[in-house]
Amino acid sequence: MSAIAALLRPRSVAIIGASADPTKMTGRPISYLQRHGFAGEIWPVNPRAETIAGLPCFADVASLPGAPDAAIVLLAPERAEAAVRDLARRGCQAAIVLASGYGETNAEGARRQEALKQAAGTMRLLGPNTIGLVNLTDGIMLSATGALEVGELPAGRISVVSQSGGILGSLLSRAADRGIGFAKLVSTGNEADLDSSDLIAELLEDPATDVIAVYMEGLRRPEAFRSAARRAAELGKPIVVYKVGRSESGARAATSHTGAMAGADRVYDAMFRQYGVIRAEGFTDLLDIPAALVAGRRMAGRRVAILTSTGGAGTLLADNCGLAGIEVAPPDAVTAQRLATLLDEDQATVGRNPVDVTLAGLRPDLFRGAITALLDSPGYDAVVVVIGSSALAVPDLVAGAIVECQAQSEKPVLAYVSPHAPHLVRLLNRQGIAAFATPESCASVVRALQRRAFPPMPGAQAADPSLLAGLPAGNLNEAESKALFARFGVPVTREHVAADATGAAAAARALGGEVVLKILSRAIAHKSELGGVRLGLTADQVPAACAEMLARLRAAGAPEPEGFLVQERVRGGVEMILGFHRDPQLGPVLLLGAGGVAAELFQDTALRLLPIARADAEAMLEELKAVRLLRGWRGAPAADRTALVDAIMAFAALAATSGDRLLEAEINPLFVLPKGQGVRAADGLAVLR
Amino acid sequence: MSAIAALLRPRSVAIIGASADPTKMTGRPISYLQRHGFAGEIWPVNPRAETIAGLPCFADVASLPGAPDAAIVLLAPERAEAAVRDLARRGCQAAIVLASGYGETNAEGARRQEALKQAAGTMRLLGPNTIGLVNLTDGIMLSATGALEVGELPAGRISVVSQSGGILGSLLSRAADRGIGFAKLVSTGNEADLDSSDLIAELLEDPATDVIAVYMEGLRRPEAFRSAARRAAELGKPIVVYKVGRSESGARAATSHTGAMAGADRVYDAMFRQYGVIRAEGFTDLLDIPAALVAGRRMAGRRVAILTSTGGAGTLLADNCGLAGIEVAPPDAVTAQRLATLLDEDQATVGRNPVDVTLAGLRPDLFRGAITALLDSPGYDAVVVVIGSSALAVPDLVAGAIVECQAQSEKPVLAYVSPHAPHLVRLLNRQGIAAFATPESCASVVRALQRRAFPPMPGAQAADPSLLAGLPAGNLNEAESKALFARFGVPVTREHVAADATGAAAAARALGGEVVLKILSRAIAHKSELGGVRLGLTADQVPAACAEMLARLRAAGAPEPEGFLVQERVRGGVEMILGFHRDPQLGPVLLLGAGGVAAELFQDTALRLLPIARADAEAMLEELKAVRLLRGWRGAPAADRTALVDAIMAFAALAATSGDRLLEAEINPLFVLPKGQGVRAADGLAVLR
Repeated sequence: MSAIAALLRPRSVAIIGASADPTKMTGRPISYLQRHGFAGEIWPVNPRAETIAGLPCFADVASLPGAPDAAIVLLAPERAEAAVRDLARRGCQAAIVLASGYGETNAEGARRQEALKQAAGTMRLLGPNTIGLVNLTDGIMLSATGALEVGELPAGRISVVSQSGGILGSLLSRAADRGIGFAKLVSTGNEADLDSSDLIAELLEDPATDVIAVYMEGLRRPEAFRSAARRAAELGKPIVVYKVGRSESGARAATSHTGAMAGADRVYDAMFRQYGVIRAEGFTDLLDIPAALVAGRRMAGRRVAILTSTGGAGTLLADNCGLAGIEVAPPDAVTAQRLATLLDEDQATVGRNPVDVTLAGLRPDLFRGAITALLDSPGYDAVVVVIGSSALAVPDLVAGAIVECQAQSEKPVLAYVSPHAPHLVRLLNRQGIAAFATPESCASVVRALQRRAFPPMPGAQAADPSLLAGLPAGNLNEAESKALFARFGVPVTREHVAADATGAAAAARALGGEVVLKILSRAIAHKSELGGVRLGLTADQVPAACAEMLARLRAAGAPEPEGFLVQERVRGGVEMILGFHRDPQLGPVLLLGAGGVAAELFQDTALRLLPIARADAEAMLEELKAVRLLRGWRGAPAADRTALVDAIMAFAALAATSGDRLLEAEINPLFVLPKGQGVRAADGLAVLR
Repeated sequence: MSAIAALLRPRSVAIIGASADPTKMTGRPISYLQRHGFAGEIWPVNPRAETIAGLPCFADVASLPGAPDAAIVLLAPERAEAAVRDLARRGCQAAIVLASGYGETNAEGARRQEALKQAAGTMRLLGPNTIGLVNLTDGIMLSATGALEVGELPAGRISVVSQSGGILGSLLSRAADRGIGFAKLVSTGNEADLDSSDLIAELLEDPATDVIAVYMEGLRRPEAFRSAARRAAELGKPIVVYKVGRSESGARAATSHTGAMAGADRVYDAMFRQYGVIRAEGFTDLLDIPAALVAGRRMAGRRVAILTSTGGAGTLLADNCGLAGIEVAPPDAVTAQRLATLLDEDQATVGRNPVDVTLAGLRPDLFRGAITALLDSPGYDAVVVVIGSSALAVPDLVAGAIVECQAQSEKPVLAYVSPHAPHLVRLLNRQGIAAFATPESCASVVRALQRRAFPPMPGAQAADPSLLAGLPAGNLNEAESKALFARFGVPVTREHVAADATGAAAAARALGGEVVLKILSRAIAHKSELGGVRLGLTADQVPAACAEMLARLRAAGAPEPEGFLVQERVRGGVEMILGFHRDPQLGPVLLLGAGGVAAELFQDTALRLLPIARADAEAMLEELKAVRLLRGWRGAPAADRTALVDAIMAFAALAATSGDRLLEAEINPLFVLPKGQGVRAADGLAVLR
């Protein structure tokens, strides 16, 4: 048994600093362990008590009858470190430290946290600044959360990993109200040792867990999280994450809360998408989506039927589904006919979606018949039943009918409860029908059910590392950068480097036609702002333009350039940006964006962590609003998508091959020419170390 | 007393089709009236009963002892029409028809609805397809909604107008759970006569109503709604609207539900913004925002302090506030010092926001002291208190402290309740502290509190109508369109119309420098797609270009153009679009957008209903992402904003002056030159009738 497994299912637990008063925070763990019927050994440690809650109490760790599988340390920071050291010596496998006042406070706290970790040695540590863990599968509560005072805590097949203990408690009480059960809940707190990726990885292997819900402030080991996500895909167990740090205030608060490292939220978002992790957008979704996924049913497509006895709530739901990109199309003719016969209605009226059965919906036979007709229709991938006030008088009848209909179909059946009716929501959830109290949650859940949860995941894609040999550290100039890109297979403009005006004119003549003239410099980042780019020159115009450029550069006090770059002029096509940078937390990131001002002004960009699969490159294109330009905008020809995807993969291979050497790279613009004509990198930059 | 006032507070009510069985839908109204202590006369009408609920029953409307102030018609459509006719004859002021099966079904239903309206004559009608109305101020229930079965319905100062009866019931039960009270709730249903604008207007004058919450599927009389919104601004009573139809599915569902007319949702959105109507984005917000506004407190700015005893929930809230554009800045030095002294903490730790008081937050003196310190700080406009699980044991203490602190300040104090704790939410709301169960709602509410609710509202702005005299109906060509724009004061490019190539060359010489040559045609909408636009020609190049254009037009089989347009070439500046169209439901709409592909591809456009105030034009600019281009993008000079706003106002004056004649107009592009150099309409189109 691994130490984490021992922590989740210990046979013996030492409670360091236990109090005999169950109303005190330090009295709760033993009280909760006993109340939920923990079958193993409980060893209270407190030098000032003989017995606690009927159990013999030990003066110190050394006096324990054996090495405990797990321990909860309830002491303040001043004394916690010694207790942890004693436990490690005694052979305890894992300890939970609840106290706060460590890395989340200040430099002194960070030092204290490091000392705590040192004291633990090879013993695993959960916390500090954690509320502990709750194992509802086996009835083992290693926690002081007040949420355990809640009367009924149903066991279920969702496990929770939360960097916040308060959020764990909030989810616990909210789920209990909703009739949603959990397997295990773990609060990782400051993550001095065990972090959320460790727990996710462990819980994925738990046979009692089907879905994992994660409250995340930041990842300490993104690579471990990605491995866990890959494993989740293999096992078919979805991970649903609610991550804060979407706004600056949130990111700042997260850092001070648990000292978690922040990467850019957009990069997290890209990573989740890439690894098939479902991101909960609303906090309520962090319960609602797992509750729906745990039933194991998925939608084959994105078409939903809404059955309602109350028009307004049906409309509300249809509107929210539409906003979430879900199709709410009218029933096919056969289904409409079936509904018309059943409900004795005008076919035009039942030929709509939402299907409004009005008060006929209270007659169980009609209600069941209508749900079944919609489930049977090949036109729908799921059915949402809207429950109105009129159903409140007969909750069992309504719930029974829905449960029965779902049992006879493979498709998901969901319920939206329009009035305030927590008992009905509870009743439905307990019987395996995901039920929701807001139209937004319901729409989010439908979207999550239809998501292809597990996209293909690429392996490494490095090419021959000798392709980077001999390159200097620092900024490469445009010609060097593009030569590097070209080596990996990115098509670039035809061009020549010239030392002076004469050479530039000769180069222009060699290229023929109108050319682009640029200054060539490693030191000048924005050459066009210094007049260092001229488009559409003939060879004859080149010498004068060179002179003018140099004069302007010198007047601006800019460093002397390496020379001039003369290149073919690319016309037509769609301008894109292809970029690479390193997120401080998550690592190498690829960016694809619309060119010109669009990428920055309208944030029309798509991101992926490297490595990427070809399917990722395709998906990045589809995320851009500018994809419409590539398809052929207003009569323009369609662009060469295949060549663009080839270029993205070539650029990704460069990044993968470079190891840590490539710091930053950008092709801007990358011209995507009409189909069959390929792409051309017209400008670019690479920074090496 | 007006008929609507009589409907809201009748002294006598006839119940047509009343049943003696209070569990039946037709038995509920009398039961509800009696249960809530209606003090007026109740006259049941049913030929098959002697007495109902202890009241003498009348055989028909003619036998009633007098003309009732109001009546509820519980009959099916077949018999409802006659009852309505009888009531109108008897002198009843207003009748409520509950039955469905009218305009929301099919053509036959629409006919039936028209007949019902005819039968009512001058008597006012609520419905059909309504659940009626609930007056909690005076305890008068003219409704059959099952939501009235809910035990406790607190009276309050929010009134509800809903086009759906089901939503009315949903709000009623949800609010009761939350401890939020209502004044009046009216479901307008199919709005054969009285519509939501009527009810909003009436309820604004109700001294018991401070805020109006509206569930809207579509407006029948937008002008009446705008008048009501103006009146709301005068009275300082906010209107909060949740409107469906944001997606196509929702718009379709709304149309079939109550037969409401649909206009474009974006135009509704613009109208709400323009008239100071607050749009609730989430359904829960339709309760949460009014509940917060009803306290009457507003934020002077957008800076909020978050006080928490549970780090995770504080972070969650800070993140959501940040996303909603709310500032969550650290406390000023004085406040941080005050908190440090109070909490005996490291000043660095309390110098953060959220202010995490951890478990010290359970000590009432510290809790009160911390809230007061934050309320006193000039750096904050509101305080949100986060309540964690640990507070559940002492709800009265927590609620009491918050209420006490709010009483000593003018600033709003809100509460976010992290665990599931409906009793605490109720307790707080009842004591005047807006309390929320989701971080998203809390952030929406803070945003609503800081909104300047009532922007300036313009009157008419028509200019001299003779400016349109003599213009033909149909499409104007570019020259005619721009001449029209110029007449109203929009600066246009210098240009000349030429009949042929020779004339065009002469015109180019007269203009001097490089010119733009275009074909001039009322019939060709997209002239550049037919090669009908050439930029940067010298006068010498013009004749050949003319010949080429004509040849290409003829080859494409396009109609013969009116001639050529030769214009100055405008260089530099930011390209914008200025447009005018008529929304089928809401009327004349002005559009300002980023030029080029941005308006369409990135939907970077701002809308306003006409007429507009100058402040609206300024606000439109600020709504665009492209406003950054106008401010001077990447070293480019700032654009001439004043001239752009002048042009918007001139364009708006044209639309206002044209009455119904102008169908559509567009300036695209409108070049906004650097500050001091004005704007130029470089292309344009107007369609008249």
